[in-house]
Amino acid sequence: MEGSPMERMKRTTLVHPLPQSSSSSPAPASLHASDQTKPACPLRPSMTLQGELVAQIPGLAEVLKGGSWTQPTCLCCSSNNVEPLVLVQLADRIDPVTKKWIISRLEAPMKEGGAALLVHSGEDDGGNVLVLSAPRCTQLRVTEDLGMWKPYMDGNMVAFSYDDRKSFSNVDDMQVFLTLAERQYVVKYQLDSLRAKKDRTIPGVPESRGVLFARESIFQKLEKVGVVKAVIALHDQRRLGDLAKAWYSGGQLLGQPLDSIQAYFGTSVAFYFSFLDFYTWALVPPAVLGVVLTLFPVGSGVTHNAAAQEPDEDEPGIPVSGLVLQAMFSMLWSTVFMEAWKRRTAVLSYRWGTLQPTERYAEPRPGYKGPMGRNPVTGRPEPCFPDWEHKLRVGISVPVVAFFLGLVALGMTMFYYFEAVARHFHEDGGTWLSVPLLYLPSVAHILYTNVLGTLYGNVALGLTEWENHRDESSFQNHHTTKVLLFNFFNCFAVLFHIAFIRQDLALLRKRLASLLIVTQLLNQCTEVVVPFLVDRIFSDGTKKPKEDDPEEDRLRAQGRLPPFPGLFPEYIELLVQYGYLSLFSCVYPLTAVLLLINNITEIRTDAFKICRLFRKPCSAPVSNMGVWQPAFEVLGFVSVISNCWLLLLSPGVRRFCQEGGFSSRNALLFAVLVEHVLILGKMILAFVIPDEPGWISLKKQELEFRSMQAFNQQLQQ
Amino acid sequence: MEGSPMERMKRTTLVHPLPQSSSSSPAPASLHASDQTKPACPLRPSMTLQGELVAQIPGLAEVLKGGSWTQPTCLCCSSNNVEPLVLVQLADRIDPVTKKWIISRLEAPMKEGGAALLVHSGEDDGGNVLVLSAPRCTQLRVTEDLGMWKPYMDGNMVAFSYDDRKSFSNVDDMQVFLTLAERQYVVKYQLDSLRAKKDRTIPGVPESRGVLFARESIFQKLEKVGVVKAVIALHDQRRLGDLAKAWYSGGQLLGQPLDSIQAYFGTSVAFYFSFLDFYTWALVPPAVLGVVLTLFPVGSGVTHNAAAQEPDEDEPGIPVSGLVLQAMFSMLWSTVFMEAWKRRTAVLSYRWGTLQPTERYAEPRPGYKGPMGRNPVTGRPEPCFPDWEHKLRVGISVPVVAFFLGLVALGMTMFYYFEAVARHFHEDGGTWLSVPLLYLPSVAHILYTNVLGTLYGNVALGLTEWENHRDESSFQNHHTTKVLLFNFFNCFAVLFHIAFIRQDLALLRKRLASLLIVTQLLNQCTEVVVPFLVDRIFSDGTKKPKEDDPEEDRLRAQGRLPPFPGLFPEYIELLVQYGYLSLFSCVYPLTAVLLLINNITEIRTDAFKICRLFRKPCSAPVSNMGVWQPAFEVLGFVSVISNCWLLLLSPGVRRFCQEGGFSSRNALLFAVLVEHVLILGKMILAFVIPDEPGWISLKKQELEFRSMQAFNQQLQQ
Repeated sequence: MEGSPMERMKRTTLVHPLPQSSSSSPAPASLHASDQTKPACPLRPSMTLQGELVAQIPGLAEVLKGGSWTQPTCLCCSSNNVEPLVLVQLADRIDPVTKKWIISRLEAPMKEGGAALLVHSGEDDGGNVLVLSAPRCTQLRVTEDLGMWKPYMDGNMVAFSYDDRKSFSNVDDMQVFLTLAERQYVVKYQLDSLRAKKDRTIPGVPESRGVLFARESIFQKLEKVGVVKAVIALHDQRRLGDLAKAWYSGGQLLGQPLDSIQAYFGTSVAFYFSFLDFYTWALVPPAVLGVVLTLFPVGSGVTHNAAAQEPDEDEPGIPVSGLVLQAMFSMLWSTVFMEAWKRRTAVLSYRWGTLQPTERYAEPRPGYKGPMGRNPVTGRPEPCFPDWEHKLRVGISVPVVAFFLGLVALGMTMFYYFEAVARHFHEDGGTWLSVPLLYLPSVAHILYTNVLGTLYGNVALGLTEWENHRDESSFQNHHTTKVLLFNFFNCFAVLFHIAFIRQDLALLRKRLASLLIVTQLLNQCTEVVVPFLVDRIFSDGTKKPKEDDPEEDRLRAQGRLPPFPGLFPEYIELLVQYGYLSLFSCVYPLTAVLLLINNITEIRTDAFKICRLFRKPCSAPVSNMGVWQPAFEVLGFVSVISNCWLLLLSPGVRRFCQEGGFSSRNALLFAVLVEHVLILGKMILAFVIPDEPGWISLKKQELEFRSMQAFNQQLQQ
Repeated sequence: MEGSPMERMKRTTLVHPLPQSSSSSPAPASLHASDQTKPACPLRPSMTLQGELVAQIPGLAEVLKGGSWTQPTCLCCSSNNVEPLVLVQLADRIDPVTKKWIISRLEAPMKEGGAALLVHSGEDDGGNVLVLSAPRCTQLRVTEDLGMWKPYMDGNMVAFSYDDRKSFSNVDDMQVFLTLAERQYVVKYQLDSLRAKKDRTIPGVPESRGVLFARESIFQKLEKVGVVKAVIALHDQRRLGDLAKAWYSGGQLLGQPLDSIQAYFGTSVAFYFSFLDFYTWALVPPAVLGVVLTLFPVGSGVTHNAAAQEPDEDEPGIPVSGLVLQAMFSMLWSTVFMEAWKRRTAVLSYRWGTLQPTERYAEPRPGYKGPMGRNPVTGRPEPCFPDWEHKLRVGISVPVVAFFLGLVALGMTMFYYFEAVARHFHEDGGTWLSVPLLYLPSVAHILYTNVLGTLYGNVALGLTEWENHRDESSFQNHHTTKVLLFNFFNCFAVLFHIAFIRQDLALLRKRLASLLIVTQLLNQCTEVVVPFLVDRIFSDGTKKPKEDDPEEDRLRAQGRLPPFPGLFPEYIELLVQYGYLSLFSCVYPLTAVLLLINNITEIRTDAFKICRLFRKPCSAPVSNMGVWQPAFEVLGFVSVISNCWLLLLSPGVRRFCQEGGFSSRNALLFAVLVEHVLILGKMILAFVIPDEPGWISLKKQELEFRSMQAFNQQLQQ
C-alpha cells in the first residue's frame, strides 16, 4: 500500500532538487556476468565507486567524490563496489556535530543499537546530503526479519533464514538475491528501526526543540525537528529505461512485465498493476454482453430503450427474464472475478516471496508509541500499548467517521433544498438579478465539499495516528478505509439519491453516461495529455539537451518532479469505476465497454506516470492489495442489492407486472426474493472457490509441518 | 463429534454382554498419592493386575485370569500395573490362527507396522475376547501425532513433543498425563492406523471372504469379514460413580464438572455439555424479556394479543417500535451469544489441549481409500486420492441432497393437496364411509416421511463414504451437514409454509405453542420417565442386588445397554429448539421461558443417559463442536429474515400502517430496509468481537514465532 494523498503530509519525503541516480549496478540480466560485487579483495578499505559508474552519473558523482563509504566490519560485507540506495537530505545549515552523530548511529552495528548501514557523507563534512547503502549482513538479517521467502537450493521458495543462508540460491550476489526495491526497503527499515536507547538530547540540537525519549524513533524525531528533510530512494536510470521499454514504450499492447515491475518498484506497486491487468481482462465478458445487449435490444435491452422514450407497447421480448439473466451474470461475474483474483494474489505473493509476511514479529512502525516493555511474543524490547486501549480508540474513530459521512449527506440535502428554493424564488418573481442565485447552491456545495474533504483528510490521518497501530499494514489499512469510505460516499451519494430516493432511472442513466464520459475525458487529459505536455516542456525547459550528457539533463528534470502520491488515487479510480459498472450495470449496459477502453490506456499512462513523473516509491513488501480487496468484494454484495432494486424500478419490469396483473407489493417481494437468492449464491460460490490454488496450500502446510517438527526437536535440545 | 444415529451402522461397536470395567486406576485426585504406576521394578515380566483390583471387577477378572499381558520391549513402558482400556470382541468361533495373527499385529512395534499395544488374550487361546492397553511410549507418540497440547514445566500449554517429553509435567504418570478418554482413544487410533503392508490374505480366513490389500485398514477389514465383532472402550465404574455424583446426583443444580466430563468422556462429549450449559444460561435474557412482554403487554405485546383476538382499537402502545426493539434484541442476542461461545470454545480447547489438532498430518481415517502414494506434506506412505476427484464427488453430493429436500417439500405439498381434496370430497357428498379418507393423507404423509428418512439416512452415509474424506473430522462434518439439513428441513418445512406461504400468524402461534409443549412433554417422557423406569426395572430385573457384590450386578445391567447413539440427536434437539426460539420469537415471546425450563432438566437427564444408559463413547479429541457451530450461526442470520417478515405480517404493524397511511409496498420496503440493517449490524458485530480471547491469540502467535525460529535454526543444521 502506498497510502493516500495525505500520506505526503506524514512522510516528509520532500523533493530534493539534487539530481541523483544509482546506475552503479547493471541491469539484472547482466548481473551474473559482472562478479565485481563479490568480495574480490576483502577488507580493502577504498570503497569508492568504479570510475565508469561515476562518470555515468554526474550528479551523484559530485556528491560522492569528496568522502568515502563506511568500512564494514565483517569480511563478507566487504566489496569494492558499494551501491548507493537511499539519499538522506539534511537541513541546509546542519550542525556538523549533529551530522556526525547521525552518521555514527547509522554506522554502528545492530548490537550497539545502530542501523549497521554504509554511509557516504558527501563532498565534505559540512554537506547536507548522506548517501546510504546496506552491507550484505544487514540485507540478509532484515530479509529474515521481514519473513521474506527466497528460492532454496531445491528450487522451492522457503522463508529465508540467516543461519542457513548458504543453502539459498544466489545468496552471494545481493544484486540477484534481493531486488532493487527490496534492497532499498532494507535501508528504510533500518532507518525506521533506529531507536534511542535512553532519554537523551540530539547533539547540536537545542533541548527546547526536542528530547529523544527512550525507544523513540530517531529518524522520526529528526524529521520532526527539521534536521532530516527527506529520505529518498534513488532511481536507477538504466534499469528504469529497460523497464519503461518493456512496459509501455516498446509498442506492445498486451501484458506487462510484472516481475520487473516488482523488482524495481516493489510488491505494492506490482500488485496494483497486476490487479489493473487482471481487471481489464475481466472486463471483456461484460463488455461483450453489453455490446450484444445494445446491438440486439430484444429481451433485456427493453429496459434501456423503454426508459429513454416513453414505454413502447409494440416492443417484443421477455424483458424480465432477460434482466434477471443479466443480474445473475453480474453476480456470477463479480464473484468469480474476485475469487480468481485472490488465487492470482496467492500465486504472485508466492513468486515474490511475500506469502507470509511476519510483520507482527518484526520491529513496530516508527510512529508506534507506548510505555517501554517487551513484546509478549518475541520478547524483544519495544513500546507496548495496551491492546484494549488501541481497540477502544479504533472504536471511537467509527462515530467520528460516521459524523463526517453524515456531513456529506447533509451537504447534499442542503444543496437540493436550497436549489429548489432558489429555483422557486426565481420562477415566482425573480428578475435577471436573481439568476446568479440559481448558481449559488452549486457553488456553495462545491466549496463545502472541498473544505470538508480537506478537513476530513487531516482528521482521518490524525485519528489513525492516534489509534496507535503497531504494524504499518494495519495503519495503512485503517487509514485507507477511512479515506476510502469518504471518497466513495462522496462519489456515489448523488447516484444513490437519484436511484433510491428519487427513483428516476432516466436521470440516473444520463448522469451515469455523463460521469463515465467525463471521467474518460478527464482521465485522458490528466493522465495522457498533461504528462505528455509536461514531458515536452521538460525537454524544452532546459533548452536543448546536451548531446554528450543526456543523463544529467534527465536527472535535473527528475529533480523537479513531485513525490509519488501513493497508490490511493489509482485504486480509488478503479473502485469508483467498478462501482459504476457493478452497481448500475443494468441501467447502462455499455459501461463495461467504456471502462475496457479506458483501462487499456490507463495501464500505459499509469506506467508512464510512475516511471517518469514521480520520484521512486519505497514501500514494505506486501502479500496482497490490502484493504482494497475487501472493498471490491463488499461492492460486489452491494451491487446485488442495487441491481435488484434497479430491476424493480425498470419500466420493462413495471410493464410486465401491469400486464401480468402482479401488484407492486408482489413485484417487490419477488425482487427481494431474487436478491436473497443471488446473495446466497454469491456467498456459496465465494465459499466453494478456494482462495489459493491447491499447490500453494500444500506449500504452506509443508512449511507448517516442518516448523512443527523443527519446534519439537528444538525443545529437546 | 459423535456423529449421527446412522453412525451406528458404520461403527460396529455392537454391545458385548460381557461385563467389563477398569477401575484399576484410582480417581484423578488420589493419583499423585499412589505411585505404583511408576516403573518400580523395571523389566519385571509379570504384568498382571493387582490382586485387589481383580477382586473388584469380577467380570474382567475372569477374562484376564487365564493369560497374561504383552511384555513391552522398552524399559520405560514396564509397569506392574497394566490398565485395561479397550475390549475387542471377536467372532464366537474364531480360528486360533487368525487370533494369533491379530495379536501379533497388535503387539508388533510400530517400526514393523504393528500397533505397539499391550494385549491380553483372555482366559485361553480359544477365547473370543482381547483386552488391550497401550504402553507409555505408544501413548506419548500418539499424543504427539494428534498434536495435543500438554502442560509444560513452565506452566504453559505447549504442543506435546515426544523428544522433549521430560520437560512436560506429570509425564511419568500416564494416569495423570493423559485422561482416561485420551488413553482409550490412543488405543483406538492405533487400531485404526493398523494397515496391511502388502496384498495378503488374513490367516485362517478363506480368500473368498476377503483379501487385505496393501495399506488397507486391517481392523476395518476384520470387522467387514466378521472376525471382529466390536471394539468397546471400557467403563471405569469408580470414576463414573464419582462423576455422576458431581454431575447430576449430587443435588447441585448449577454448573457441571466440565473438566471431569472431558477427562472421562473426551472432548466431543464435553463440548456438547459445555454448549448446553452455556446456551441455557444465555436463555435467561430472552426469557426475562418474554416474561416482561407477556406480563406487560404494552407496546410490543400488542402483536401477541392482537392476533389472538380481532385487532382491538382501544389498545394503547407503540407496537412498531416495540417490535423493532424486539427484533433488534433478538439480533444482538443471537450474535453475542454465538461470538461469546466461540471465545469460550477457544478457552476450553486450550485447557483441554486441543487448540490446534494436527489431524491432517496424522494417519488418514481407516475408510480413506486410494492408490498408494506418499503424503505430499509429511512424506509418509498413505493412500493418495486425487483432490479434484474428492471435490468433484462432494460437488455431486449437493444435487443429490437437494433432490431429497425436494422430495420432502413435494411430500408436504401432496399432503396439503390431498387433504384439501379429501375434505372437499367429504364435505361435498361424503358419508360416514368417507371419514377414514380424511385421515388417509396424514397417514400416507407420515409413512412417506419415515420411508424417506430411512432411505436418506443410508444415502447420506453412503455418499459421505463415497466422497472419500481423508480426515475423520471432515467426514463427520460432511455427514452431519447432510443429515442435519434434512432433519431441519423436515422440522421447519411446515412452519415455514404456514409463515411464508399461508401467512397465517395465528395458526403459526398455535402450532408453535403445541410443538413446544409437545416437545417438552416428549422430552420429559423419553429422557426422564423412561430412563427412570428402565433404571428401576434394571434394579429389579436381576432380583435383589447382592449386598456383597454390587459391582458385578451393575456390570451385568450395563451389558444390556445399547451403544451410545452419538451426539447428533442431542445437538439436533438443541438446534430445533433454537430454531423455534430465534425464527419465530416475535410470535410467541414465552418460547425462551419454556426452553429454559426444559434445558435445566435436559442437562441432568442427558448426563444420566450418557453415564448410565449407554456404553462409553470413544472419539477423537476435537477443538470445537464442529459443523454445529456454523449451523447455529446460519440460523441466526435466517432468523433476522424470518423475524422481519413476521413483523411485517403482524397485525400490530398492519394496523400501524393503515393508521399511518403507509401503503403495503412501503411497509414492505421498510421491513426490507430493517432486515438489511440488522444483517449488516450482525455481520459487523460478529466481525468486531474477536473469536478468541487476546491471551489465546498471544499463545498461538508465540508458538508460531517459536516454530518459525526453530525451523530457521534447523535448516542450518
